[in-house]
Amino acid sequence: KINADRLWDSLMEMAKIGPGVAGGNNRQTLTDADGEGRKLFQKWCEDAGCSMGVDQMGNMFAMRPGEDPDALPVYVGSHLDTQPTGGKYDGVLGVLGALEVVRSLNDLGIKTKHPIVATNWTNEEGTRFAPAMLASGVFAGVHTQDWAYGRVDAKGKKFGDELERIGWKGEEEVGARKMHAFFELHIEQGPILEIEGKDIGVVTHGQGLSWIQVTITGKDAHTGSTPMPMRKNAGLGMARVLELVDEIAWSHKPHAVGAAGHIDVYPNSRNVIPGKVVFTVDFRSPDLAVIQDMEARLKEGAQKICDEMGLGVEFEKVGGFDPVAFDEGCVSAIRNAAERLGYSHRDIISGAGHDACWINQVAPTAMVMCPCVDGLSHNEAEDISKEWAAAGADVLLHAVLETAQI
Amino acid sequence: KINADRLWDSLMEMAKIGPGVAGGNNRQTLTDADGEGRKLFQKWCEDAGCSMGVDQMGNMFAMRPGEDPDALPVYVGSHLDTQPTGGKYDGVLGVLGALEVVRSLNDLGIKTKHPIVATNWTNEEGTRFAPAMLASGVFAGVHTQDWAYGRVDAKGKKFGDELERIGWKGEEEVGARKMHAFFELHIEQGPILEIEGKDIGVVTHGQGLSWIQVTITGKDAHTGSTPMPMRKNAGLGMARVLELVDEIAWSHKPHAVGAAGHIDVYPNSRNVIPGKVVFTVDFRSPDLAVIQDMEARLKEGAQKICDEMGLGVEFEKVGGFDPVAFDEGCVSAIRNAAERLGYSHRDIISGAGHDACWINQVAPTAMVMCPCVDGLSHNEAEDISKEWAAAGADVLLHAVLETAQI
Ligand SMILES: NC(=O)NCCC(=O)O
Ligand SMILES: NC(=O)NCCC(=O)O
Repeated sequence: KINADRLWDSLMEMAKIGPGVAGGNNRQTLTDADGEGRKLFQKWCEDAGCSMGVDQMGNMFAMRPGEDPDALPVYVGSHLDTQPTGGKYDGVLGVLGALEVVRSLNDLGIKTKHPIVATNWTNEEGTRFAPAMLASGVFAGVHTQDWAYGRVDAKGKKFGDELERIGWKGEEEVGARKMHAFFELHIEQGPILEIEGKDIGVVTHGQGLSWIQVTITGKDAHTGSTPMPMRKNAGLGMARVLELVDEIAWSHKPHAVGAAGHIDVYPNSRNVIPGKVVFTVDFRSPDLAVIQDMEARLKEGAQKICDEMGLGVEFEKVGGFDPVAFDEGCVSAIRNAAERLGYSHRDIISGAGHDACWINQVAPTAMVMCPCVDGLSHNEAEDISKEWAAAGADVLLHAVLETAQI
Repeated sequence: KINADRLWDSLMEMAKIGPGVAGGNNRQTLTDADGEGRKLFQKWCEDAGCSMGVDQMGNMFAMRPGEDPDALPVYVGSHLDTQPTGGKYDGVLGVLGALEVVRSLNDLGIKTKHPIVATNWTNEEGTRFAPAMLASGVFAGVHTQDWAYGRVDAKGKKFGDELERIGWKGEEEVGARKMHAFFELHIEQGPILEIEGKDIGVVTHGQGLSWIQVTITGKDAHTGSTPMPMRKNAGLGMARVLELVDEIAWSHKPHAVGAAGHIDVYPNSRNVIPGKVVFTVDFRSPDLAVIQDMEARLKEGAQKICDEMGLGVEFEKVGGFDPVAFDEGCVSAIRNAAERLGYSHRDIISGAGHDACWINQVAPTAMVMCPCVDGLSHNEAEDISKEWAAAGADVLLHAVLETAQI
């Protein structure tokens, strides 16, 4: 078993870096706080006897050597970056859980055939630079590195420049590492495990995602002196499209979700009818056909709404991935570990995207989930218990150990 | 008659300060650009033989002396500040039109019984610091100066501090000046004069305004892993309220308008269901009862929408003024001037708010309007012709002259 107190203390220590405004964290990717968090993780890894490698996307790989010089490493990890108003566990538990696996193996004097690599993937959240899981996507060959470097944040800063600025642009070629397997521990971010009183979620699938950025163009005009029939109110067009998004998602219940989290209104002045609105629709489902249906209905419906209102509309896909089926062997290793350790468990589909979803394309991959309070995540009030974290890390340890010996 | 070329050249010269991104202006109140614009206006006024007074709200008063030492001045002016993506004429025409009146009287060697004061009111637009017409409101005793100083912009900067920072906080007590009359020339900002082919709008009334800031509170949560029935989506609540605002305004057609120009979504991240949205509803009508009806229906309807969705909602009135009837004597002076000069004219109700609406409470007041292309304002493409500007300034000159001699 892992050391529950040490894991918890490390989580609390990391949470001091990039504190939020309401008890959570704001440690967005490639900010100074992200740089600080990385340094602390590096120090802990080196203290645990690991050697750190960093690739050109800033992905961090802390290696605990194995006994067989020809054996590919088992990678274990997640991400240290957070939402602007994020929790202390989303991603962080998976990275520090991997570190705890290494520390526990050291404590127990266990040697493994395969090396074990505790990993931190850059920009998983996608909140500052879309899309999410950017660096694991480059690692898996889904995006080119140049394209990733050119992603811009809301202030126009480029991913590549910011990576260099915080000093975490490594030398290593991205994706050159070959993996025996990849495991990721993560909080569920949904309510199922807590409601059913299960300690462990054995993640068999991940649902797919589509991010469509919608730009509606109307005409800036005076809110007082412009007669109602002459208005081209892009804000009202957006309101109607948001209602449509909700309608579309419910129509596939319970197999889909939809919302817009990002909305920018221009010029955003109280007495100017909005001439432009840019917002991103987030549609998800475990069924690819459902995602495609939602995309098509959004485009058709929004076009109709905007045509009727004399507004222009454009769509840009700014992120997305297909539904994922994880590797049966890795999934079994997790299920077996939970069983062996006596933790209650159930198979589960991940509602969120994870680095594991991309790594699954280049290595046998699976995920362990632990419950979180009220299913709440992407909120500073995100919460888990020490016991839940420990159970997840225990299962991670055993699944990794089983895989690292064969 | 005024000098049309000189007026136009001054308009073009002023428009060079705080240029926009699309041919218009971004010279928001109390920015460095506002300071520069004020300096240029001061220089022009002093060159025209006026002495400048500045009050503690930054209002500027350039006085051309009269012949009767006991006669109160006739004030003439408008505002130099603009929207973030504003036009070159909204407000500016009224200030430089007042300067042109002074310059023309000088050219013609005309002495007046009453002094004439070309005036620039601070923060008419209300885009950076709500409410609109802030400094003329303090002048008229509608707001206290302390309250005005405490208004904050989107970055948390205070009006009082910014006024001091740009160096335009004067010594004069605000509202101490007594006026014989006040005249304001302004572009219509609506389509009526152009459509009817009239040169001049004789403004008899101004419609009233209500700005209600609505804060909807939901719960930040993950867009992927939060089941649809568990969501508290403040963005969707806003969408429904925006639809209601539109419905309410149309229900009073043609006597009301309604829209929301300002919308802020928190935390504004693609994969976070909005936990909070703040937006400002702008309702207007020439009929006070209609405004009150719209306010009541907004509050009741938004409360119902939010209750049904499990969202919280709060309302704050952040600006407003009642419908205005301008002074009959001043209105007649304008109508007579248009008639005498042979300009086609019609009586009109102002759709926008103006400093004249507040000054009307403390002095006999009226407004002259000239057409603008397509009724477009609060847009960088706002446009007028040199002839329209000249006609407006001619009528202003004659109305002022008539009033300044009695
Ligand atoms: N796990 C997580 O919150 N990832 C961010 C990407 C997503 O929105 O699913
Ligand atoms: N004239 C003008 O645009 N004033 C700004 C205040 C308003 O929104 O009516």
